[in-house]
Amino acid sequence: MKKIGIADTTFARFDMASAAIDELQSLSASVSIIRYTAPGIKDLPVSCKKLFDEKNCDIVMALGMPGSKQIDKQCAHEASTGLISVQLMCNRHIIEVFVHEDEAKNEKELSILANNRTRKHAHNVINLLFHPDVLRKHAGEGLRQGFEDAEPIR
Amino acid sequence: MKKIGIADTTFARFDMASAAIDELQSLSASVSIIRYTAPGIKDLPVSCKKLFDEKNCDIVMALGMPGSKQIDKQCAHEASTGLISVQLMCNRHIIEVFVHEDEAKNEKELSILANNRTRKHAHNVINLLFHPDVLRKHAGEGLRQGFEDAEPIR
Amino acid sequence: MKKIGIADTTFARFDMASAAIDELQSLSASVSIIRYTAPGIKDLPVSCKKLFDEKNCDIVMALGMPGSKQIDKQCAHEASTGLISVQLMCNRHIIEVFVHEDEAKNEKELSILANNRTRKHAHNVINLLFHPDVLRKHAGEGLRQGFEDAEPIR
Amino acid sequence: MKKIGIADTTFARFDMASAAIDELQSLSASVSIIRYTAPGIKDLPVSCKKLFDEKNCDIVMALGMPGSKQIDKQCAHEASTGLISVQLMCNRHIIEVFVHEDEAKNEKELSILANNRTRKHAHNVINLLFHPDVLRKHAGEGLRQGFEDAEPIR
Amino acid sequence: MKKIGIADTTFARFDMASAAIDELQSLSASVSIIRYTAPGIKDLPVSCKKLFDEKNCDIVMALGMPGSKQIDKQCAHEASTGLISVQLMCNRHIIEVFVHEDEAKNEKELSILANNRTRKHAHNVINLLFHPDVLRKHAGEGLRQGFEDAEPIR
Repeated sequence: MKKIGIADTTFARFDMASAAIDELQSLSASVSIIRYTAPGIKDLPVSCKKLFDEKNCDIVMALGMPGSKQIDKQCAHEASTGLISVQLMCNRHIIEVFVHEDEAKNEKELSILANNRTRKHAHNVINLLFHPDVLRKHAGEGLRQGFEDAEPIR
Repeated sequence: MKKIGIADTTFARFDMASAAIDELQSLSASVSIIRYTAPGIKDLPVSCKKLFDEKNCDIVMALGMPGSKQIDKQCAHEASTGLISVQLMCNRHIIEVFVHEDEAKNEKELSILANNRTRKHAHNVINLLFHPDVLRKHAGEGLRQGFEDAEPIR
Repeated sequence: MKKIGIADTTFARFDMASAAIDELQSLSASVSIIRYTAPGIKDLPVSCKKLFDEKNCDIVMALGMPGSKQIDKQCAHEASTGLISVQLMCNRHIIEVFVHEDEAKNEKELSILANNRTRKHAHNVINLLFHPDVLRKHAGEGLRQGFEDAEPIR
Repeated sequence: MKKIGIADTTFARFDMASAAIDELQSLSASVSIIRYTAPGIKDLPVSCKKLFDEKNCDIVMALGMPGSKQIDKQCAHEASTGLISVQLMCNRHIIEVFVHEDEAKNEKELSILANNRTRKHAHNVINLLFHPDVLRKHAGEGLRQGFEDAEPIR
Repeated sequence: MKKIGIADTTFARFDMASAAIDELQSLSASVSIIRYTAPGIKDLPVSCKKLFDEKNCDIVMALGMPGSKQIDKQCAHEASTGLISVQLMCNRHIIEVFVHEDEAKNEKELSILANNRTRKHAHNVINLLFHPDVLRKHAGEGLRQGFEDAEPIR
């Protein structure tokens, strides 16, 4: 049985992990899920590494909600850079799901965005684990997570 | 007994380490604390690494107060990037507590902020070590350190 | 027989991988091609690493189409940094083919650009594998991929 | 006897190494000093690494004077990032002493700044090697190198 | 006999490698030179690493000409960061010779700059290999490559 790690934060303003777990379980009965909550997004890289090294996860979702200030953008950049390093150290995927506070016009839209993006990326996780052919079929099609897909161009 | 490292600087304008140690000791009788003071924030990554490798700490708090100039922002960015690298090399958490001089309106507020943020993050350290369930319970709740918590969104 | 990896994304709005494969096959009968599709450009570094480590590719093309927003630029930067790290870990080339949405005036031009750049870089891949002398012959000649070549200066 | 490495550049416009060596020797009779001069600041990371790996230095001072243009700022950033990496690879401190040309109003002030900052950091080197308690005593006191110390806040 | 690697690009608009090789050969009869041409500057880090690991070079010159657009600046930054990483992995120097298109007022000046900077840096290469004392003698003297030297300050 494949193990999926979920790393999330107390800083986020939406419980993205519950959305992720709900979607993953609806998509596949044959996965086990391990959740690890850290304070903020800069704690996610080592949290993901521990999920790989200590919990033997096959893939991890890193869930975070950076604020709208310049320093928050920088923290997100540092976290993303670290998440890429972890993937290269472990040869396994981390699907980063970051929802920036200033992506939405208001809190209602922000919660919808956080929920949708997380669930869409749960599909990516399942496809990377079990259905790489589905990803290949949609290559170059402008798929997005959270808002509308973009149109492919010909 | 768990060992907590405290890395701080002579550059900072507030004795964050004393606040950290005071709070940690009030939260748990079963930790030992090792303190290491370096000149500035760019010296923190290797200081933390030495606390892990040479002092066998289980977790480290990295305490710093970047100035308000552009070059200070860049130093903070470099230090943060290094702190993430150390965590990935050692598979242990570093809780970064940086207080930027321009986050507060005046020195009074800055000292309150530095004190509060450090103490709040001391709780995160104890929770990561002993109570991961407490962090999980507060996932997605918009917790902040230093100023007011943000509101969770539904 | 040399193995060429192709890493692409579902985020891109043009099927760059098909253009790459078509061009590579027209250039050389003696290569085998392995394709790996991931969700977005930040998933490309580990995808390329897996193509080297798990599929034993000799060289990889990393194909992506970053959007036009600031956050897309940052993702592209993080992805590029990761792609360089992978090359240093594996001692093999990754030819990065990124087409930024705002490089073209309209969708028609964007699709032409994506197609041309991908095919031009396929030549670089074949030259790195089989004809390093051809690259050396064109050193300093201002070669470009996608738009017109620049003029060499004397 | 402790070995201190001094890495400096031909790009700098002030002989910071001579100031460093003079100050170090006045502070301690029990150190040996090894100097290594490279062309520019981006050559400092590997120079420091060689001082650790090939000359077995216990600590290194990295001395540089970035220019005032945007590209110089970026070079300084790249150099600093590299210097942090070296420290983590070697588990030893590098005290970075960078003096930016635009920190001073004129050449006279610049030379005073370069001299003062270098000498003040020489004290940090000696304290890290022999007197960590002195650093700890001054933690959070707003110490600066080159200009006036900042005031601690309460 | 010392081996010097030359990594250059087809993107550059001036044949910097020929200038480098001509200057190196005029400076020393006791070096052998190995040239490796890649498409662009982001291909230089792994090219240099291969020159160290597969060709056993003692030092490498990395020659490139970034364009004047923002994306070119970012590519140069990524390349430089990678070149520093290679040096730390191999404990050997890479002398980066980058000529930015917007450093010169016109093509004539650009070609003179590219030629001069490359040749001046060839001297640095020879000095690092054979005459470290010459570099030390010029420490802090404001040496530049391409334009006029800066004045040392006292």
